[in-house]
Amino acid sequence: MNLLLLTENDFISPDMVKISDRRQEQLFKILKAQPGKVCKAGLFNGKTGSAVITEICREYSLLQVQFETPPPPPLDLALAVALPRPQTFDKVIRCGVEMGVKEFHFFMSRKVEKSYWQSPVLTEEHINYEVSLGLEQCGDTIPPQVHFHPLFKPFTEDELPGIIGDGAAFVGHPTAPQPLPSCVPGRVTLVIGPEGGFTDYEVELLAANGVTPVTLGRRTLRTEHAVPALLAILKPPTLR
Amino acid sequence: MNLLLLTENDFISPDMVKISDRRQEQLFKILKAQPGKVCKAGLFNGKTGSAVITEICREYSLLQVQFETPPPPPLDLALAVALPRPQTFDKVIRCGVEMGVKEFHFFMSRKVEKSYWQSPVLTEEHINYEVSLGLEQCGDTIPPQVHFHPLFKPFTEDELPGIIGDGAAFVGHPTAPQPLPSCVPGRVTLVIGPEGGFTDYEVELLAANGVTPVTLGRRTLRTEHAVPALLAILKPPTLR
Repeated sequence: MNLLLLTENDFISPDMVKISDRRQEQLFKILKAQPGKVCKAGLFNGKTGSAVITEICREYSLLQVQFETPPPPPLDLALAVALPRPQTFDKVIRCGVEMGVKEFHFFMSRKVEKSYWQSPVLTEEHINYEVSLGLEQCGDTIPPQVHFHPLFKPFTEDELPGIIGDGAAFVGHPTAPQPLPSCVPGRVTLVIGPEGGFTDYEVELLAANGVTPVTLGRRTLRTEHAVPALLAILKPPTLR
Repeated sequence: MNLLLLTENDFISPDMVKISDRRQEQLFKILKAQPGKVCKAGLFNGKTGSAVITEICREYSLLQVQFETPPPPPLDLALAVALPRPQTFDKVIRCGVEMGVKEFHFFMSRKVEKSYWQSPVLTEEHINYEVSLGLEQCGDTIPPQVHFHPLFKPFTEDELPGIIGDGAAFVGHPTAPQPLPSCVPGRVTLVIGPEGGFTDYEVELLAANGVTPVTLGRRTLRTEHAVPALLAILKPPTLR
């Protein structure tokens, strides 16, 4: 936890918060924080700043807070991923949130197992939990939008062109002639296929709807490694 | 499993292998492979090619193999990481192997918990298992060298200069003035700190021994996300 993420519900006065949940446990048990300790804090959907512990015990902490700095800038990028297996879904959300993705689209594709759509990781409560962990890690406060598209063709034909807008869009495909470009300015949409890859039909439909197939090199990475690698190539975190 | 990784022990004749372990289970149960199926195969520490299933049952598979293609080129990069917690260690090995890292160095640092050095994930057997999964995922056959350095100062002063050689070396540090460069040709050494960061003393000692501190942007990524992102910036997989 690099940032204590607070919500309006935590406030007991204009500049004092009281916490008694997972965050309190982390402060008390893991960080072994004492009164007077200053930590980085942020208001969910708002600014970041600092919190000073004024009282801490096993049950709760009281902190005095001050917010003055805008959160880190978001990535101007939509991440569209063929719905992965549940553990990988969590990793994609966490990694994307850490890197500043504010728009996720999970969609159906031929090689996605239907059972993945029934997973409890897709509930709003679980996603909010993963999002909070990601925001706490990277020092951000702005949660992403997470959208689900259970049919490939309507998603690709009816929704994707609007998502891409006037930006660039890329999908990895082993036989594509050109490589993924780096440091792409403006809006970018990155489409990532399922573990078994897209079918030729799917890549053609994506291409017909504005997504450029690109090669990603000879090595096939796991989805959870492809996401940070490709995001870093398109939008290097060191340039922001 | 994108590549069936075989060793000399699997051979029952010059071009036939018999397997009956985890790989066989994956072929039979998960891929539901039938006789005649062709899959990508590779010889551990050797060339890649194809394997045709000639016989398959619950207990074993027989395959006819042919190797003609060199494995994907390695990354000309040494990855030096402050020993992370056990789950993260596994992720670093797997991700690094997938991306082509052939030289890992895990070292002690002030904010590394001493107990991590006792973890069973550091045994040769466990590392070999994780390495195999990584090689099978990315279609490679060449295992990396994995080194451990339980003392920070001797590692940094006595070993690191030799590891860096005549190449470039970088370490992420929040207050560094310059960003991590992208597409760095030739040999590169990437040094990654512990979860709590390096101490100022440690960064100074690294800098004094040839490692340039660089900023990685405002967001602090988890080690398992920083590794693929930073490797991709330094050595984009799409350029190889």
